[in-house]
Amino acid sequence: MAPLGERSDDPVLPDPPQGPLHVARARASFPWKELALFWEGEDTLRFKKAIFSTLENDPLFAHPRGSRLSVEKYQELNFLRCKRVFEYDFLPVGDMLGSLPRVLALIECLGMYDWSLAAKFFLHVLTFGSAIYSSGSERHFKYLPKIFSLEIFGCFALTEVSHGSNTKAIRTTAHYDPSTQEFVIHSPDFEAAKFWVGNMGKTATHAVVYAQLYTPGGQCHGLHPFVVQIRDPKTLLPMPGVMVGDIGKKLGQNGLDNGFAMFHKVRIPRQDLLNRSGDVTPEGAYVTHVKNVGQRFSESLGSLSSGRVAIVGMSVVNLKLAVSIALRFSATRRQFGPTDKEEVPVLEYPMQQWRLLPYLAAAYALDHFSKSLFLDLGELQRGLLGKDRSVRQVRAPCRAGTRDPRQRGIQECREACGGHGYLAMNRLGDLRDDNDPNCTYEGDNNVLLQQTSSYLLGLLSPAVLLGGARIESPLKTVDFLDGYADILGRRFEGSSPEDLLDSSVPLAAYEWLVCYLLRESHQKLSQETRSGKSDFEARNDCQVYHCRPLALAFLELTVARRFHEHTHQPRVPPPLRAVLQRLSALYALWSLSQHTALLYRGKILPWTLVTELMNPELKDDAVALVDVIAPPDFILDSPIGRADGELYKNLWTAVLQENKVLERASWWAEFAVHKPVVGSLKSKL
Amino acid sequence: MAPLGERSDDPVLPDPPQGPLHVARARASFPWKELALFWEGEDTLRFKKAIFSTLENDPLFAHPRGSRLSVEKYQELNFLRCKRVFEYDFLPVGDMLGSLPRVLALIECLGMYDWSLAAKFFLHVLTFGSAIYSSGSERHFKYLPKIFSLEIFGCFALTEVSHGSNTKAIRTTAHYDPSTQEFVIHSPDFEAAKFWVGNMGKTATHAVVYAQLYTPGGQCHGLHPFVVQIRDPKTLLPMPGVMVGDIGKKLGQNGLDNGFAMFHKVRIPRQDLLNRSGDVTPEGAYVTHVKNVGQRFSESLGSLSSGRVAIVGMSVVNLKLAVSIALRFSATRRQFGPTDKEEVPVLEYPMQQWRLLPYLAAAYALDHFSKSLFLDLGELQRGLLGKDRSVRQVRAPCRAGTRDPRQRGIQECREACGGHGYLAMNRLGDLRDDNDPNCTYEGDNNVLLQQTSSYLLGLLSPAVLLGGARIESPLKTVDFLDGYADILGRRFEGSSPEDLLDSSVPLAAYEWLVCYLLRESHQKLSQETRSGKSDFEARNDCQVYHCRPLALAFLELTVARRFHEHTHQPRVPPPLRAVLQRLSALYALWSLSQHTALLYRGKILPWTLVTELMNPELKDDAVALVDVIAPPDFILDSPIGRADGELYKNLWTAVLQENKVLERASWWAEFAVHKPVVGSLKSKL
Repeated sequence: MAPLGERSDDPVLPDPPQGPLHVARARASFPWKELALFWEGEDTLRFKKAIFSTLENDPLFAHPRGSRLSVEKYQELNFLRCKRVFEYDFLPVGDMLGSLPRVLALIECLGMYDWSLAAKFFLHVLTFGSAIYSSGSERHFKYLPKIFSLEIFGCFALTEVSHGSNTKAIRTTAHYDPSTQEFVIHSPDFEAAKFWVGNMGKTATHAVVYAQLYTPGGQCHGLHPFVVQIRDPKTLLPMPGVMVGDIGKKLGQNGLDNGFAMFHKVRIPRQDLLNRSGDVTPEGAYVTHVKNVGQRFSESLGSLSSGRVAIVGMSVVNLKLAVSIALRFSATRRQFGPTDKEEVPVLEYPMQQWRLLPYLAAAYALDHFSKSLFLDLGELQRGLLGKDRSVRQVRAPCRAGTRDPRQRGIQECREACGGHGYLAMNRLGDLRDDNDPNCTYEGDNNVLLQQTSSYLLGLLSPAVLLGGARIESPLKTVDFLDGYADILGRRFEGSSPEDLLDSSVPLAAYEWLVCYLLRESHQKLSQETRSGKSDFEARNDCQVYHCRPLALAFLELTVARRFHEHTHQPRVPPPLRAVLQRLSALYALWSLSQHTALLYRGKILPWTLVTELMNPELKDDAVALVDVIAPPDFILDSPIGRADGELYKNLWTAVLQENKVLERASWWAEFAVHKPVVGSLKSKL
Repeated sequence: MAPLGERSDDPVLPDPPQGPLHVARARASFPWKELALFWEGEDTLRFKKAIFSTLENDPLFAHPRGSRLSVEKYQELNFLRCKRVFEYDFLPVGDMLGSLPRVLALIECLGMYDWSLAAKFFLHVLTFGSAIYSSGSERHFKYLPKIFSLEIFGCFALTEVSHGSNTKAIRTTAHYDPSTQEFVIHSPDFEAAKFWVGNMGKTATHAVVYAQLYTPGGQCHGLHPFVVQIRDPKTLLPMPGVMVGDIGKKLGQNGLDNGFAMFHKVRIPRQDLLNRSGDVTPEGAYVTHVKNVGQRFSESLGSLSSGRVAIVGMSVVNLKLAVSIALRFSATRRQFGPTDKEEVPVLEYPMQQWRLLPYLAAAYALDHFSKSLFLDLGELQRGLLGKDRSVRQVRAPCRAGTRDPRQRGIQECREACGGHGYLAMNRLGDLRDDNDPNCTYEGDNNVLLQQTSSYLLGLLSPAVLLGGARIESPLKTVDFLDGYADILGRRFEGSSPEDLLDSSVPLAAYEWLVCYLLRESHQKLSQETRSGKSDFEARNDCQVYHCRPLALAFLELTVARRFHEHTHQPRVPPPLRAVLQRLSALYALWSLSQHTALLYRGKILPWTLVTELMNPELKDDAVALVDVIAPPDFILDSPIGRADGELYKNLWTAVLQENKVLERASWWAEFAVHKPVVGSLKSKL
């Protein structure tokens, strides 16, 4: 393939502009355009470029966005931008299923521009749309063209004021009335109001509402999804019996209208039950092909799994933006130096490298992880479509825990930019705030981790403990546990610093760690159960020091392994091998270094060697690595992170372009004329 | 002393309201009013109550504040509130020096209400005022009454666009012109513009400006502070030659107007040089009593030290508010349970306790640390006033590093509240955002840590290494290093879980850790220097794994020690001893547990015992401990954190009180009428 940059007047990968970052770029050990091509593929590069250029050329997408707008104005603008995305029709709905890489790229492009926009668009098209498609049946397909033409606008209403993580305890009810062949949707009180629902605040006309299904006679069949019309599409006024509104300002993504709804005996046709896992006959009999209540429950919530994968992707995109800003800043900001006269870029300080380079490696590792997982799950779902799907095995590796490197990484990037990171226009605050819901979306992280550790513990049958059993999962994430007994016997005495520069050594240590924690968790759980505790108590008492670290270590291993395999495959172009393998080693070691105490306890690695994990060569590659993952300046939208590296010129220009920057305050007379009498109100104390 | 609550109709410590939190309160092992009295003292309790009640009764202080206002409106309201604080005159200026506990209490009260207000008020009165008082001389005292009557409004201008941490490299110049007996203040270019200056954006009429002083002939005498008038107090319009404006929106504290200024040959009278460390005669000769340039430099910046202490205090206050909200929420939010029918408060889960209780202990430990340090420094400065002050020894323990438990703690509190923590009205976002500048104020944390480790390394003379030297510092923080050699020989083989419940054991381990890291850092530094590196390089290469952990461990030890001493003194009332000592043990152990890998390496503690650090008894005391540190509901201003624990009622009411919550969006026709034609703009791609 010819070099991408040399094909036309409008190259897919233009050369970066001249400027102070030129010096840092010249030091790179690899050709960044070749890495971009390897990392994204040519089709994705072209597709992303088309989207980015389109947004940049349309004045509707001119900044500002984010926290510098009022909530009301921001929501309006965000809706108009969402509508415009339909007009551009970047990826026609019919092409979506056939081109998952383009779906990913579209999410990433809109998200890099603004998560409020991406969330508004995808909650409607994908979350609402696929809930109808995958939980419903042919009788519901009539809704699909209306979604894609914006005749209706949708949302997904599961969470209630008093229940989020514990979805089984959702309290909205749907009583079937055979006399009219309708369901009566009802919120017993405000604690059962649907809450947090994206798009519900001001826009949605229809909602997929989860409610407890009751048949005549009062039998409850558990949680089921229903299509409920909540507003009139002609007026956007609420339907009778629906109290719907906006929940108010959030920490981030305020372009999205999150809403609440209470239903007062709202009647909907029987057909609007999404009936894949269970249905009600016109006479009121409940019918299902799924025998087990628990499985039916999993099945109705199955669509959450793809949501979780998307959340990994969202926060990785934010991390990519944040490290891009922080590293370009660090390569151009000079502070202190060997003499009073000479200052060096702060990226030259080992401390700054140690703060930021691991997050650069994490951005690459997690980017690969989330994309490849999304594609694998797509394959898997296609393969399993129509069959009895088991969601559990693919749910586990979706979110890498509370010690989530992404939110922490964005904050580290913000702090690494000093005061300039605190200036809103530099965008690190918006990135952190817009990323914030990812920490608790779809359930507390610790609850998700508990699901993962339970899954792992469930694999540990007596046969495995003795060796010789086969463990397999569709994504092969747990297959290594076959060697459980052998892995526990591993020792690493001979490891040298050079070994650690290859990620296979930390991967082997990670496998040991997971097996060790699995054994410890298993023993602790047995012990707690034997001591007479209930299953509920016993599991709770094992979380902090056993099951939670187990789940985290397993998820980290999964990410590190995928990155290792990706960077060590034969099709990696030779000039990129060294830098990618260095990234892989840094990510694996850094991630593993959170567990040094356990590694000491297990006496399995000479962990003073962890001090070798800083790889100074990576420092010289950092700016070029950023060029691969950073979007164009218009999208990155951060004066201190622009590609030319003209840090201060860009900052100064942006400051002076702000509204009323040099203007006297409108309330000047409150200072200049109306002077206070000090102590005049003291008597009121 | 009679119980505080029973003295009058308006008790200083009223009983908490009835409600769902009653159950949790009834479980407490100690009388919370007695702890409040011990913790704050009666005078402070009364003083705080007077301030809080005053704010609550004045409609000017009615909410909203914070991120739910536009920046312009917020700045106006914040200025009006600041003026009103002068009218109430809670603490007359004359009383401030004599009553440091009341100064602290006033900062805390205003800060708990809103840091933008506290910052505006104290930057003017204390930072600007004390810079003039402590860096100037009698000829400048004329400014003081004008400050306190609000005739002028002040700011403190040190940082420039391109220099923050490296203050020596500040580039604003002040050339003396003997022909007119004036200084000419000049910014050579926009990189030397003063930037970030609180109150400068819209309000300040005068600034203390730091500039390089030049005498005729071109000799530079280093950085000196000058009083420069930047706006006309009659009009709030800029003075000739001054370009002054607002830097724009920040991540937090947007009620405060942070500004920038460029000076174009602005002339000020010779007398407006603040001349404590150096002066210029009318003829243009430089005179000083301080011989050493470095010391003169320290002296002109000495006033920053008290600022650093105040910053510790600010972030502790935010942590107190955040844990109050998160723990009350956790004691009332129910999710999951032993059966499908019964749900338990999330605080009952060991995981939730493990997330939050250490931050409760940290809130107490750091509250005591920052207050006692502030008072000690006050004593010290009084004692040393007029003498040759050495700032260095008191500067070290002022900020506990980048792994700062406060910003992390606030984020943990926000995540522990799940989705409700993401709702702006619950205030965890504003707390995090308003706390954010504390991470980088007055220089990057890592730069400050380097100062601390350099100070410690400087103490390590050959005599100390051999034992027998005396190490002393005014605050006694380093005196234990006298026993350096003995401490390094400590072993803790016999420690049992019970030992660890007394904070003296982890303190002893901390002392070992500091001595160990001191030795390692010293060796590493010598080794780097011997290998031919320059001092600058050698120090940089020792930061990540040696000097930085050394500084952090030392600061953590200092906090833990002060808290230990405070909770173990004989005057602690007997009913409070158990709970305070449990807090002390939890804080010390939790803090120490960050260093388990090193403790393993040193083989000094059976660190599996760290798993004992969760003290279940503390869980039952948590809500009462919060009652001691939480302000009244009006000030805490968080529906999910109100004292009655009516979580959902409060939340629901607050949601419905928001602006236009049920109203149709003003742009409804953009959805209902103006439909997009899907793909109509596709040709533009």
